Amino acid sequence: MQDLTPGARLRSSFMATDTAVRKDSRGVSYLSLKLVDRTGSIDARMWGLPEELLKGLPSPTYVDVEGHAHEYRGTLQVKVERLRVLRLEELSEVDYLPATEQNRQAMAEEVMLAGRGFENEHLKDLFELMVSDEQFWKAFCEAPAAKGMHHARIGGLLEHSVSCLRIAHALAQLYPVDQDLLLFGVVFHDVGKVHELSWGGGGFAYTTEGRLLGHVVLGERLVSSYVAALPGFPEELRLRISHVLLSHQGETEYGSPERPKTLEALLVHLVDNLDARAAMYLETTTNVSPGGWSHHANPLGRALYVPDEPERENPGENA
Amino acid sequence: MQDLTPGARLRSSFMATDTAVRKDSRGVSYLSLKLVDRTGSIDARMWGLPEELLKGLPSPTYVDVEGHAHEYRGTLQVKVERLRVLRLEELSEVDYLPATEQNRQAMAEEVMLAGRGFENEHLKDLFELMVSDEQFWKAFCEAPAAKGMHHARIGGLLEHSVSCLRIAHALAQLYPVDQDLLLFGVVFHDVGKVHELSWGGGGFAYTTEGRLLGHVVLGERLVSSYVAALPGFPEELRLRISHVLLSHQGETEYGSPERPKTLEALLVHLVDNLDARAAMYLETTTNVSPGGWSHHANPLGRALYVPDEPERENPGENA
Amino acid sequence: MQDLTPGARLRSSFMATDTAVRKDSRGVSYLSLKLVDRTGSIDARMWGLPEELLKGLPSPTYVDVEGHAHEYRGTLQVKVERLRVLRLEELSEVDYLPATEQNRQAMAEEVMLAGRGFENEHLKDLFELMVSDEQFWKAFCEAPAAKGMHHARIGGLLEHSVSCLRIAHALAQLYPVDQDLLLFGVVFHDVGKVHELSWGGGGFAYTTEGRLLGHVVLGERLVSSYVAALPGFPEELRLRISHVLLSHQGETEYGSPERPKTLEALLVHLVDNLDARAAMYLETTTNVSPGGWSHHANPLGRALYVPDEPERENPGENA
Amino acid sequence: MQDLTPGARLRSSFMATDTAVRKDSRGVSYLSLKLVDRTGSIDARMWGLPEELLKGLPSPTYVDVEGHAHEYRGTLQVKVERLRVLRLEELSEVDYLPATEQNRQAMAEEVMLAGRGFENEHLKDLFELMVSDEQFWKAFCEAPAAKGMHHARIGGLLEHSVSCLRIAHALAQLYPVDQDLLLFGVVFHDVGKVHELSWGGGGFAYTTEGRLLGHVVLGERLVSSYVAALPGFPEELRLRISHVLLSHQGETEYGSPERPKTLEALLVHLVDNLDARAAMYLETTTNVSPGGWSHHANPLGRALYVPDEPERENPGENA
Amino acid sequence: MQDLTPGARLRSSFMATDTAVRKDSRGVSYLSLKLVDRTGSIDARMWGLPEELLKGLPSPTYVDVEGHAHEYRGTLQVKVERLRVLRLEELSEVDYLPATEQNRQAMAEEVMLAGRGFENEHLKDLFELMVSDEQFWKAFCEAPAAKGMHHARIGGLLEHSVSCLRIAHALAQLYPVDQDLLLFGVVFHDVGKVHELSWGGGGFAYTTEGRLLGHVVLGERLVSSYVAALPGFPEELRLRISHVLLSHQGETEYGSPERPKTLEALLVHLVDNLDARAAMYLETTTNVSPGGWSHHANPLGRALYVPDEPERENPGENA
Amino acid sequence: MQDLTPGARLRSSFMATDTAVRKDSRGVSYLSLKLVDRTGSIDARMWGLPEELLKGLPSPTYVDVEGHAHEYRGTLQVKVERLRVLRLEELSEVDYLPATEQNRQAMAEEVMLAGRGFENEHLKDLFELMVSDEQFWKAFCEAPAAKGMHHARIGGLLEHSVSCLRIAHALAQLYPVDQDLLLFGVVFHDVGKVHELSWGGGGFAYTTEGRLLGHVVLGERLVSSYVAALPGFPEELRLRISHVLLSHQGETEYGSPERPKTLEALLVHLVDNLDARAAMYLETTTNVSPGGWSHHANPLGRALYVPDEPERENPGENA
Repeated sequence: MQDLTPGARLRSSFMATDTAVRKDSRGVSYLSLKLVDRTGSIDARMWGLPEELLKGLPSPTYVDVEGHAHEYRGTLQVKVERLRVLRLEELSEVDYLPATEQNRQAMAEEVMLAGRGFENEHLKDLFELMVSDEQFWKAFCEAPAAKGMHHARIGGLLEHSVSCLRIAHALAQLYPVDQDLLLFGVVFHDVGKVHELSWGGGGFAYTTEGRLLGHVVLGERLVSSYVAALPGFPEELRLRISHVLLSHQGETEYGSPERPKTLEALLVHLVDNLDARAAMYLETTTNVSPGGWSHHANPLGRALYVPDEPERENPGENA
Repeated sequence: MQDLTPGARLRSSFMATDTAVRKDSRGVSYLSLKLVDRTGSIDARMWGLPEELLKGLPSPTYVDVEGHAHEYRGTLQVKVERLRVLRLEELSEVDYLPATEQNRQAMAEEVMLAGRGFENEHLKDLFELMVSDEQFWKAFCEAPAAKGMHHARIGGLLEHSVSCLRIAHALAQLYPVDQDLLLFGVVFHDVGKVHELSWGGGGFAYTTEGRLLGHVVLGERLVSSYVAALPGFPEELRLRISHVLLSHQGETEYGSPERPKTLEALLVHLVDNLDARAAMYLETTTNVSPGGWSHHANPLGRALYVPDEPERENPGENA
Repeated sequence: MQDLTPGARLRSSFMATDTAVRKDSRGVSYLSLKLVDRTGSIDARMWGLPEELLKGLPSPTYVDVEGHAHEYRGTLQVKVERLRVLRLEELSEVDYLPATEQNRQAMAEEVMLAGRGFENEHLKDLFELMVSDEQFWKAFCEAPAAKGMHHARIGGLLEHSVSCLRIAHALAQLYPVDQDLLLFGVVFHDVGKVHELSWGGGGFAYTTEGRLLGHVVLGERLVSSYVAALPGFPEELRLRISHVLLSHQGETEYGSPERPKTLEALLVHLVDNLDARAAMYLETTTNVSPGGWSHHANPLGRALYVPDEPERENPGENA
Repeated sequence: MQDLTPGARLRSSFMATDTAVRKDSRGVSYLSLKLVDRTGSIDARMWGLPEELLKGLPSPTYVDVEGHAHEYRGTLQVKVERLRVLRLEELSEVDYLPATEQNRQAMAEEVMLAGRGFENEHLKDLFELMVSDEQFWKAFCEAPAAKGMHHARIGGLLEHSVSCLRIAHALAQLYPVDQDLLLFGVVFHDVGKVHELSWGGGGFAYTTEGRLLGHVVLGERLVSSYVAALPGFPEELRLRISHVLLSHQGETEYGSPERPKTLEALLVHLVDNLDARAAMYLETTTNVSPGGWSHHANPLGRALYVPDEPERENPGENA
Repeated sequence: MQDLTPGARLRSSFMATDTAVRKDSRGVSYLSLKLVDRTGSIDARMWGLPEELLKGLPSPTYVDVEGHAHEYRGTLQVKVERLRVLRLEELSEVDYLPATEQNRQAMAEEVMLAGRGFENEHLKDLFELMVSDEQFWKAFCEAPAAKGMHHARIGGLLEHSVSCLRIAHALAQLYPVDQDLLLFGVVFHDVGKVHELSWGGGGFAYTTEGRLLGHVVLGERLVSSYVAALPGFPEELRLRISHVLLSHQGETEYGSPERPKTLEALLVHLVDNLDARAAMYLETTTNVSPGGWSHHANPLGRALYVPDEPERENPGENA
Repeated sequence: MQDLTPGARLRSSFMATDTAVRKDSRGVSYLSLKLVDRTGSIDARMWGLPEELLKGLPSPTYVDVEGHAHEYRGTLQVKVERLRVLRLEELSEVDYLPATEQNRQAMAEEVMLAGRGFENEHLKDLFELMVSDEQFWKAFCEAPAAKGMHHARIGGLLEHSVSCLRIAHALAQLYPVDQDLLLFGVVFHDVGKVHELSWGGGGFAYTTEGRLLGHVVLGERLVSSYVAALPGFPEELRLRISHVLLSHQGETEYGSPERPKTLEALLVHLVDNLDARAAMYLETTTNVSPGGWSHHANPLGRALYVPDEPERENPGENA
């Protein structure tokens, strides 16, 4: 869906959400809906409704759709020409959950490579212990990074961790920081999401444990349990790891019981924040056309602009 | 010192702090200082300074003092007549740390009685395990509840816990609450202070662990470690205990990673807040005379009023 | 309605609010509504709609209903089988206003008993003057404590006052407080609601006076008018009463022109806050099943948890 | 003191405050002090201290001073050449309290003229009743408008009221407002200051009643007591007057129990705010030279700029 | 529409917005809509719907309406008896945009008169340069002052500027202010709206430039471009003008990069704020009847009261 | 000074600030001062004061010092043995202003290299125009980045710009961003500091223009003036550059009139924030020993921790 351009034809199956029958400015009824699949979502409209669609559709429904893409007020939209409701027997719900477009295997290897390069033996052992816990590692590579703010997709936690890891590599060249602890911190700062969220056929949701304890404490507790399994782990390092995990939200009002007080903790928070906000921009503007504006209602809380085509800026470029 | 009344004579040894030589409105030099002992503190002034006092005193110094109490602008004060500096060999510094005036033994027994009355076998076992850990229990009965906000004295944590316990007994009659969990929660909500603070000869201070992790997480972690030692402890109860401990600050900006979401957690927070604020009033106004006002600079952030003598209100009462 | 359990049959008349005709996931129309009576409210659904219900129902309507209760996503709900619209001639609207389930007579006596026990003659006289003003006292015993936040029911103000009174009795044992003033304060802190709100057939609403002056000032003014009728009332006590009433919201942003500056004023605020928040929890979770979560949209502004059955926690209890 | 210009000689008596002996950059001792009289205050320095001044001066002291004014880092300052300490018997303390430079008699008449022009008979009667209460009217014309924020001088409340009155006259031409109520409101919005503050020989201070109840409620109560003495006063008008007085702080966090909800209340608040902030600017920059900046520590919380001389801006003007 | 009174007949054409078909308390369908024309807007209802209206109307539609006005719950409303949908060919959309009721020509002359009276030659030249730029001056006299908060109508910016100008004339009598700069500032403080907003047939909207740079900077940049065209313009005056324009929002959170630090800047901000808030009150309560309350959802964020008729207050007046 | 270790001898000249004569706990007088040179600052103490030092030293004074470094409560300090006051004729004040320790020539070249690599011809031309304006470029390479928050040293603006540039290079690999605009933005986001601040012999200060307009607007205006000199510069690109510069503070309360609404603007803000906060940590902890804590009073508003030596963490490492 990411590759749709105005004019392109579309024929595929989707999860349909936010369904409603409305009237246009001429008084004609049409079906308004959102089409979701692994690669993202897009708004759609259907006119010329057959009788059985005039009364609307439940949300979500799974549908087979034919139509084509076009631009409407600066945002890409699908005009549906044919629509068939699928029965649950025809499909596997999990296929329609949004999922990362990145290669999860490659991302997992990038993380492993970083951990195996640690010079600090204790952090290296801790890292090795964690990635060799198969059940944990599978969950970490599958989990979404959030229910809705950013990276809310299968593999989203891994994707966010890898982005943070790449930024951290650059920072380690710049500041007199404990590189191993910084890398460990950016990779696992959100590890508590693995217990805070659930991701099954029914979509992404908070667990009861997640709502009562929160991912900040759950993550610190999880890593501490691996540390406890390593005899001779230095107390000072244990404290510094726990501090990085507990303080990564940056401010108490965002759920960190303490604010960052070491350089590694400060940088982990800042890198997390940077990648999260960049993702909010990118995910909000996915379907906005060049020169257009997004809606106000998004995690950044303001309308966002997608600049006009660079070609128009640089007319002399092709000369 | 608590029993001082205007006109009373005073002869005792104290820790002298906030020492300074100043000039009065006639231009005469005097020594301004604060006298501290286990029972509290009081402002003092000394005129007619001998040569060796004219150049001032370090803070803190330990001193033997003779003088008498009088009221100055609505606050009790000591006028010092004789003052002798003590040598460290003559004293034991810890004797001068502020300490609770309550009977620590009796308070400890009141807590034990409550715990041993629990109907929930799991909570009862957990409670028993904690109080029978001698090192922990000794620390819990000795610790201050804070470095400065309220109950900042040896035994202050126990004193605060017992006050909360008494209020919780009343609430358990009023609301459909899990009484055992409520009582357990109010007694141990601040248990992390045992690791967050240190209290030795040099006064009350934060530990490095306390500043990096905070008493909220340290307390939850401590109790969880006792729970882990109890086989068959119900998962749901474990979650609810952790939630009570983590959320007791009430709002994230005060350092709780989650806000209270169960009735027990909500009440523990509210009882803690009630007793803390009452203590702030009482500790701020200790030396303020009836009809007088405290300074603005106190944990409640406003001048506090001590009402005028009831006798003056009810002149007809004795008729 | 409070005693409904999953599976129970229901046959009674209610006020129906929040009515809407919707379609379920199979596309079948159903009526969604809320059933309200004196004892509370519950969500309901009706399928197999007769022609005259397909176009919906005004809100509120008074209805006779047959159906049974069941649990849906952790919240108790009614499945309606038969529904008959009542004509206004058939009913008395006020019978359907939510009302306290407590015995109002008994609560009023509990308040009287407290006031008649005052040692301070002036406060005792003031109290007596107020409860012997029949019109006032009737209004005080009838009024809701709020339009919607908590205790929004006939007799709710009295119920809230009595809860606060019981807590205050416990606090008077704990702190060196003027007990009579504390008890007077908790009983009458919200007395201005009597003029701020109206409660007639049309439900609970703000009066114009209430919106222009607010219950804080209206309450202080009302009590001051009784004080003015008592010759020789001490000025100091008058000030302290007014201060308790004016400052009971605790902070200026919640509508108190001054913050609490005496111990009695501080405690009245804290007790009010404690009981109000406990009521918010209890009223929000009335129909939530054990192990379930409430919606976010409630006066506490967060999803609330109703712990799972204690039976599961205490398996040994029945042994 | 207002007319001082750089180079001018000065010989007069003052209250000296903020006195301190300091050393300059060459290590020479000097006396730093503030000279206060009815017309304002100014910073001063004295070098070549006689023996009895080397040990400093109490604050406040009353002094006879000779010296001359000069500019130092953009602010006017006095260099003291001779200084004699006055005995209390030689002076009347109240002569040294800052006082308005405006003609209080003329301002009082301007207020009276406005009130006597009211078309609304009820407001006219109320106004007449208030100004004919001699004790009240004397206090109103004498009171400062604040302890320190703005118009903190004898007659300051009257001065602030007259400024607001003049602005209100302009607004009454502009908006469809009840002119009489607007004028009444701007004149008496701060009338509670008469009871909130005391102004005697010892300077400006809060009364106990002022700290417990605040000027907002005290003012509304005072005006209501006059209204109560007028039979047949319309209830609606009484409500609107009370609302204007209670809401004049504009927002609850500044101590108004309700925000302005009528046009008159809204405008009274906005006019009060406008004149108060203009006064803060003017009082803060009294001694700042053209092209200079004030300190940050003032009621507006920012450094304020006094533009450079217009002559320098318009050099061609005189050509 | 402004002159409508209960009972009056109405026959005119409007833009119809917020259209919806609803059911009343008897279950009868009616059309709910808002009627807009140059003079304002009013809520309307139509019963006895012909077949083609039962399915609703697009929003906006242009309609010819017959009906009469009446009061409903304290707000004026129109009961529509006949309604005919107009075709776009029959009308000019811009005729239905809300527009000022004031005489734009007269207001423009009032501004010019002020500018031509400036004593400061530089400000006078600047003013003359601006008003003689025909394209700019036409836009300034046409622009709305906002998209929705206040003065959101053709000519609204001019109307707001003139109101501010009149208030500023009064303030210039009261404070030692640079009168020319104050008048220039209040007239042109919002001049950036000319580029921030667009106003065509499709209503009022933000431009892309407006959303990326904001009217505060756009205004300062626009005036600076005129200043740059005036040789010999004093640098100090240029700075002071820029400061007035940049700081007029008063606080950084409202979009001013610096807070007001000169008296002129402070007063421009306060006058802007005063007139904006008065307009919010007046525009919100346009159709509210005496003794009635507006909705909460308006730019002032609270229900607003329209006092009851003065006649009712002063029954003795006609005697 | 950066290379000082406990025990090292020191013999050099410094600017001495924060000078004061105090008494130690034995009552002996000592001189407390801060020693500043280009490389940083350090606290110092001197005992055994000669007569002429007993009366103190002005601040700042320039001094020749002999002594040695030692650790006191976790912070490095100098114990002064000999101290000679220098005369102004003996020194050049500017030599004592803090200055970057980085090679300014190399940093300037790193910036130039980046700009000359731009693919966008317009940005490349703009960049070239700016760096070839010798007066501007010299000022840019000399200016401090702030008066006190971070990088407050000669060359500090360049140092901050280069750090941001390096981070931006990494981000350009990660996000689909306009790389040239991102690099241009991070290099010049704070360019307005060149006019907002002055840096001469008397230290770092705000200019009047800086306080009235602020570096955000001054920077945008400066770059716009270069853009205006380039014919054919695309309007869209001009808008995007201005938006990046105006929004780089991230939130309006920090002085940006608009929040970032393009990806480049968002990233420039986040990179600026990241490097600024890292610098605050590093500059605050310069003299804190491993295992020690800084004071609370620093730009991050919390005590900061310098972790204990890694050697102690990894005891097995050397085995």
